[in-house]
Amino acid sequence: MTRAAYGTGEAAAHALVRAEGERLGLEIVVDFAGNLLMTRLGRDRTRPAVVIGSHLDSVREGGDYDGVAGVLAALSTVSAMITAHHICDCDVIVSVVRAEESGSWFPTSFPGSRALLGRLPPEALAARRLDTGRTLAEHMREAGFDPDAVAAGRCLLPPSRVAAYVELHIEQGPVLDDAGVAVGIVTGIPGSRRLRAGRVFGETNHSGATPRKFRRDAAIALAEFAVALDDLWAELEAGGHRLALTFCVLATSPDAGFTKIAGEARFELDVRSLDPATVDRVFDEIARLVPAIEARRGVRFDLGRETGSVATPMDAQLGAELRAAADRVGVATLELPSGGGHDPVSFAQAGIPAALLFVANQHGSHTPAEAMRMADFAAATQVLAAWVAAAAG
Amino acid sequence: MTRAAYGTGEAAAHALVRAEGERLGLEIVVDFAGNLLMTRLGRDRTRPAVVIGSHLDSVREGGDYDGVAGVLAALSTVSAMITAHHICDCDVIVSVVRAEESGSWFPTSFPGSRALLGRLPPEALAARRLDTGRTLAEHMREAGFDPDAVAAGRCLLPPSRVAAYVELHIEQGPVLDDAGVAVGIVTGIPGSRRLRAGRVFGETNHSGATPRKFRRDAAIALAEFAVALDDLWAELEAGGHRLALTFCVLATSPDAGFTKIAGEARFELDVRSLDPATVDRVFDEIARLVPAIEARRGVRFDLGRETGSVATPMDAQLGAELRAAADRVGVATLELPSGGGHDPVSFAQAGIPAALLFVANQHGSHTPAEAMRMADFAAATQVLAAWVAAAAG
Repeated sequence: MTRAAYGTGEAAAHALVRAEGERLGLEIVVDFAGNLLMTRLGRDRTRPAVVIGSHLDSVREGGDYDGVAGVLAALSTVSAMITAHHICDCDVIVSVVRAEESGSWFPTSFPGSRALLGRLPPEALAARRLDTGRTLAEHMREAGFDPDAVAAGRCLLPPSRVAAYVELHIEQGPVLDDAGVAVGIVTGIPGSRRLRAGRVFGETNHSGATPRKFRRDAAIALAEFAVALDDLWAELEAGGHRLALTFCVLATSPDAGFTKIAGEARFELDVRSLDPATVDRVFDEIARLVPAIEARRGVRFDLGRETGSVATPMDAQLGAELRAAADRVGVATLELPSGGGHDPVSFAQAGIPAALLFVANQHGSHTPAEAMRMADFAAATQVLAAWVAAAAG
Repeated sequence: MTRAAYGTGEAAAHALVRAEGERLGLEIVVDFAGNLLMTRLGRDRTRPAVVIGSHLDSVREGGDYDGVAGVLAALSTVSAMITAHHICDCDVIVSVVRAEESGSWFPTSFPGSRALLGRLPPEALAARRLDTGRTLAEHMREAGFDPDAVAAGRCLLPPSRVAAYVELHIEQGPVLDDAGVAVGIVTGIPGSRRLRAGRVFGETNHSGATPRKFRRDAAIALAEFAVALDDLWAELEAGGHRLALTFCVLATSPDAGFTKIAGEARFELDVRSLDPATVDRVFDEIARLVPAIEARRGVRFDLGRETGSVATPMDAQLGAELRAAADRVGVATLELPSGGGHDPVSFAQAGIPAALLFVANQHGSHTPAEAMRMADFAAATQVLAAWVAAAAG
């Protein structure tokens, strides 16, 4: 599955979901950024709405469930209300946002959900899609949307209109599956510091004729850097810290080849934790390591521009409501931190109570091998529906 | 400079050099494999010939002097004889061989010079050029040569016809330049063991959501492998061993990307030493390390097919003659081992006294930055010419 943010795959998925919303008789609105809002009208439209949903873009070569599961769970929830001829006290909105997968497309966090709430800073519209090199504004305009309105902060879902946001999403990790629990209630979403364009420069040279002391080997300098940070992770974890540290890319340059010492290498480093101090400890170590490796190995590091996001706790009251809902439908849950970033961050940062419900999944995520048991999905969707029934009346 | 073995660049270089040989009135012969032999006839053609020369192919994105310097030094030597109207006792042959750069083109050692001497095993003709995927036999035939004759061991320069082979070549390393000596006399050419298609298999997964204990990270497993072998090199060197150990390529697979744990990585490892036991120590450590890293990190290594070559000492008597020649023309020399492999290996293995004369060079080799001072080249060529004068009478 490859559905680029603002690409044809995402558009096709939005069209499918919208057609189902129309069939169900939901009120359909597409905002300035192309976010899709499908509303089951409540008795009192002046009351703040309950919002549920997820996203439909995928990473490059992603799986079947990341994002899609949450959209379909939300659609199932309102579909069940309609089947039961139930009308809630307030609007229940199925929100389908754009461009959640910043790792593969636009290197800016959650532009879709931030635009949805009128909170996307204009400079974020200048972020360039990694494959096309064109800006978010250009892609929005080409897809028929209105980046100028987004830049002006215009939006169709002001935060004051939202009582709460709950998103169902696959865990994207093995914790629930390993514990044998189908549903997780997320305590918080980690913050990150990221080096997405790191470079190491050495000197290309003959692999046989260059004695050790004369080498400036970019490959081995990068390998040493990676192993040192991985050792630090092990040490921090043994000391009770929770974090994730990944060299997503670690590679000699394409002109490297046999009988040559690598003159250049690149890396992409992702460091995440719910605790900003833990992430900062890693970057303190990077600041110490880099000059030491540079001096010892005659190379030069260019860390590139740092990007990142702020750690965001999920709403405690909402968490308690979700646990109560799970108890009512007889579904066991586990509390756990999220590993990945998710759109509830945008809602929480806008002052809206936000929560994230995880479904156990197998074989990881951000890979075609991503799997999910339908029974687990059904259990999590029941929890979501039970919570909506209580929250929306 | 990119002149592929049996490619158009090598052919153009052969044509240029051949035209110069014709202009000088040398006897021109091209053998079944496309090797060029240009002979200054001696008084007694029944006596074994003195052979000097080098190669004209280059690595991909190589430099100006690797190979070319030796061919031009040999041509200058016979040109000087002709200018001086000097006729030697025996033939002096300028040999320009094909396909020396096995690292970039055909993964088999010195096919050109082995074919020149009628000693290329037929199976080597099945080696496939790394860029085209076509065999050495196909490339020979396309270039107008006769791989069937090569396979049958037919040749135009039987070893019994050769009294001695001396090649001038840039050092391709910093040792002479660092010592401030223009000319080196090589003691031997190292043997090698090579893993040119190593792979590490892990599991692609989400970089935020996969806790450390669940990871099977191919990138960090490969980095650990590389650093452990580099540490071993440092330790062996401190213990007085001489070797060169290089991860020429070390890379996550092209589908690696941000927010993913790398599911696959590859490497190309080159280990060389004049002492086979030292190379074997490295491979013993590889055999110990691989299962340990596999067990600890949940990955699987595939080392691929191993290739290599046997260490070859240069002829001691020839070395003494070259030192004496250098003394006669007042050029200081240094003895040193070669780092790279060179065609004298083929001559030595055919039982022919063989030697290698190095010229100091700057900025490494197998890179466009490769440099050489013309004064150093002149000094080395004087040594070569003085030796030819003595050896060929």
